[in-house]
Amino acid sequence: MADVEAIIFDVFGTLVDWRTGIAREAAALFATKDIALDPLAFADAWRAEYQPAMQRIRSGNRAYVSLDILHRENLEIVLDHFALSDRFTEAEKAGLNRAWEKLPPWPDTVECLQRLKRKFIIAPCSNGSIALMARLARYAALPWDAIVGADTAREYKPTRAVYLKSVEALGCAPGNVLMVAAHNSDLEAARSCGLQTAFIVRPTEHGPGQKTDLAAEGTWTFRQNQFADLVEILGC
Amino acid sequence: MADVEAIIFDVFGTLVDWRTGIAREAAALFATKDIALDPLAFADAWRAEYQPAMQRIRSGNRAYVSLDILHRENLEIVLDHFALSDRFTEAEKAGLNRAWEKLPPWPDTVECLQRLKRKFIIAPCSNGSIALMARLARYAALPWDAIVGADTAREYKPTRAVYLKSVEALGCAPGNVLMVAAHNSDLEAARSCGLQTAFIVRPTEHGPGQKTDLAAEGTWTFRQNQFADLVEILGC
Repeated sequence: MADVEAIIFDVFGTLVDWRTGIAREAAALFATKDIALDPLAFADAWRAEYQPAMQRIRSGNRAYVSLDILHRENLEIVLDHFALSDRFTEAEKAGLNRAWEKLPPWPDTVECLQRLKRKFIIAPCSNGSIALMARLARYAALPWDAIVGADTAREYKPTRAVYLKSVEALGCAPGNVLMVAAHNSDLEAARSCGLQTAFIVRPTEHGPGQKTDLAAEGTWTFRQNQFADLVEILGC
Repeated sequence: MADVEAIIFDVFGTLVDWRTGIAREAAALFATKDIALDPLAFADAWRAEYQPAMQRIRSGNRAYVSLDILHRENLEIVLDHFALSDRFTEAEKAGLNRAWEKLPPWPDTVECLQRLKRKFIIAPCSNGSIALMARLARYAALPWDAIVGADTAREYKPTRAVYLKSVEALGCAPGNVLMVAAHNSDLEAARSCGLQTAFIVRPTEHGPGQKTDLAAEGTWTFRQNQFADLVEILGC
């Protein structure tokens, strides 16, 4: 196995709890307007528009725009679905869209990243934009050395260019970079680009009834499941 | 004056002392080979190739390649000039090229950046690559929120796209971003793009006989000269 020089990470679900975070921001706003909608159902509905919106860009039907723009468009779709669109001003909608910049890290995230940073270059390789990743890092205390990912390639994962251009931007060869994710599909794409891979499990990313990504499903380079165990085996 | 949300920085000369840093790395290597060349003269000669190499790309005569590649090509030119090329292995030359990743910060740099980071998004907007900026930040403890600059635009300053795409990547409007540099020409370009500007003086960047950039030469937004005074006036 080649030496690891840099470690790149999926962020939404792998390092931060988007579902609880979005629900908390939505609940605070809904409370000011006596809106009874379950904020977790709202978070799930908003997130459900995530893949279809990126898919239009992956397929070439739309030029690249950042995830901030897709989130804002998807918010409109979801508010329309719940017949809530006219209950919010433009400024309130823009504010709610910034909920993606205020997601809580999982309890082990910050300490594990701090430990890895002592030895490795660490960077997000997310579908989130540089603008979003920078603000989220400030909120959640994620100690990145650099930000790579979708904006670097102007493509969305799992399109191969995202991994390859991110690795190149960090000045590394693919084999010297480790991709960490709680999603097997993300690791499958990273492996096909020649990266090393590590699965960690986040069994409640989608709530208590989660059915997917409860275990490593490929022959990933590292299969420790727990983030702290991965950090340990990497000697940090 | 619009609110400042993010502050972007020139790096070589403004935040780190490239001349002393390159000379120190060169001196250590030269000593192992009994090479008598003055390491400061070597550093100046290497740096003298910097602008011509970028100019070929700015003018459109060459496609964008990262500064790491230009530095490596320029090293070859300079070693040839001093008739030293055959005194080094490829690995030694590659190692010397990494001297750009090991430049000492000026004495006030790290504390001033730490203070600014409490209130503002901070990022380098350098001609250095993401790979170079990330490694230099680890070496010199520069606490960036993100890395923007030449790689973001695949152009070199002072081409306008570097400032404009860097600002866009940070999710800001130009008027809400402050560019800090010890070089008046860099600020002139940033101002023409609508950014706010701040000059700080680094009177020995080019050594004790420096003749240029000894004072603010434009009507910059901030003209504190000393980095700590700028930080103070920004309320940090």
